[in-house]
Amino acid sequence: MEKKYVIGIDLGGTKISGALATVEGDIISQYTVPTKASEGELPVLGRIIETIEKVLEEGKAVVEEVKSIGIGSPGPLDTKTGVIITTPNLPFKNFKLVQPIVEKFGIPTYLDNDANAAAIGEYVFGAGKGTENMVFITVSTGIGGGAIINGKAFRGSTSNALEVGHMTLEQDGPICGCGNHGCAEALASGTAIGKRAKEAVTQGLKTSLANYENPGSYEVFQEAAKGDDVAKEILDKALTYLGICVGNVITSFDPEMVIIGGGVSQGGAVVFDKVKEVVKERCFETLAENCKIVPAGLGTDAGVKGAVALAILESK
Amino acid sequence: MEKKYVIGIDLGGTKISGALATVEGDIISQYTVPTKASEGELPVLGRIIETIEKVLEEGKAVVEEVKSIGIGSPGPLDTKTGVIITTPNLPFKNFKLVQPIVEKFGIPTYLDNDANAAAIGEYVFGAGKGTENMVFITVSTGIGGGAIINGKAFRGSTSNALEVGHMTLEQDGPICGCGNHGCAEALASGTAIGKRAKEAVTQGLKTSLANYENPGSYEVFQEAAKGDDVAKEILDKALTYLGICVGNVITSFDPEMVIIGGGVSQGGAVVFDKVKEVVKERCFETLAENCKIVPAGLGTDAGVKGAVALAILESK
Repeated sequence: MEKKYVIGIDLGGTKISGALATVEGDIISQYTVPTKASEGELPVLGRIIETIEKVLEEGKAVVEEVKSIGIGSPGPLDTKTGVIITTPNLPFKNFKLVQPIVEKFGIPTYLDNDANAAAIGEYVFGAGKGTENMVFITVSTGIGGGAIINGKAFRGSTSNALEVGHMTLEQDGPICGCGNHGCAEALASGTAIGKRAKEAVTQGLKTSLANYENPGSYEVFQEAAKGDDVAKEILDKALTYLGICVGNVITSFDPEMVIIGGGVSQGGAVVFDKVKEVVKERCFETLAENCKIVPAGLGTDAGVKGAVALAILESK
Repeated sequence: MEKKYVIGIDLGGTKISGALATVEGDIISQYTVPTKASEGELPVLGRIIETIEKVLEEGKAVVEEVKSIGIGSPGPLDTKTGVIITTPNLPFKNFKLVQPIVEKFGIPTYLDNDANAAAIGEYVFGAGKGTENMVFITVSTGIGGGAIINGKAFRGSTSNALEVGHMTLEQDGPICGCGNHGCAEALASGTAIGKRAKEAVTQGLKTSLANYENPGSYEVFQEAAKGDDVAKEILDKALTYLGICVGNVITSFDPEMVIIGGGVSQGGAVVFDKVKEVVKERCFETLAENCKIVPAGLGTDAGVKGAVALAILESK
């Protein structure tokens, strides 16, 4: 039978989203269930299998027509063995996810972490379409990344490449969740921006951020736009570090494009203008001029589209 | 005729070294001439052609038996068009080097910058033999790098990837030759170590470095080993930054191995122990434990061996 479909599964902390798509990436049917991760690994596996069956049924497709399955999940995980090693938001430990799915359906199945899946999604369907070398950076509660090198997903030797949020940017900078000091994530993530806001309020600085009970990065963007000097300075410092992080990525990978997604990227021109300014200041001219820095092209469906793209790219 | 040979040419600031080697990399004959770069591009091209003819003659080989030629040169250069764009130590400007060599000999010819050629040399003949993903970092007057990804040289989209010496490691750090502040090169290169030594002497610090007219990194290593506190501190700071640089490379590329070469790496255990300590402190455990950090395996012939390796790898 002609293999005209792929399936993408986005395994998240709150929900599992699945889609049946053509091998060109057109979505035929979708299905979503709550993850209910606390129930453990087997029930979650069951719901993933249920999702696969539902999208097939609704799409009037049969297993024999499916070329591959892509699964995006929080990491760290082992892409080679298809095992989720452990993850902060899901109570899994060495969860062998891929093997039972292959045994059940007989379809080649590829697991990857969500940042890589998002990078692949941007490459296949989003802002990175048409490039051969691109880096995707997501800036929200944390900072993560993924890269496409010569048209293929680049994962490194332990599937942990592009952990750009954990580049050291200040030797004695603030402590990071990972235990290190001065990581990009501790300086420029949404969480870091929120932390600086709370510190400013605690220090009794004169700022409109004090009007919020628990100011986060969203409030910092908002108050900075209204002209609050403390909020403006917090934002400027964080975005300068984000620019340094992006600059270091450009200096290392020499990509055609850096795509920035995640909550902080929603800040729009404020974010992109600053990042581009810092990159121009700090990178070699050839590198900086060659590399486009753009917002992510995929919206709310980014997770499941990334998983579909993973299925397409890995089965090529 | 059987293509059983390759030729490697190392174009340096003072000399041009060439070698004829088997496609397995065993060197058959060698030849060296002074570069005399000040005479200009055409005479230098002539001496490269002379070198190719000499190694063929001495190796009793003919043009038809040569599979490929590899040329390592200081950059920036364009590997795709075979043009040396410009280089600090050679008075070249858009020097079309590859085309006339191909026209003369009819042999596929590959040009690459010396850091990439050295990385390829280490991968094919040196410390990186048997790996699939490795990064080479050279630390001497400057800091440069090259990478092998999935068994192939990785160059990025403008042939300028792995400019790791120009990663920003301190936002307001010392100014670098490139114009940026706080680059790894301005903090951890041999030149940077020498600069700190001269500054310490000028500041009138109590140090045995004051016994030298013009202390450089070699003297700092020497006096630190003898117990001079100022020299020890200069070295410790620089090597900490080198460790951060290596750590950021590991966090970005997740390689199996980082190979460190160049003058500063001759410092031996002092250098490698510190770099490993910083990497262990700052990188994810999986990444740090997986990645070996080792000294370069090729010695004085690294340049020409890198060029031979380039010829072998690119013609595969």
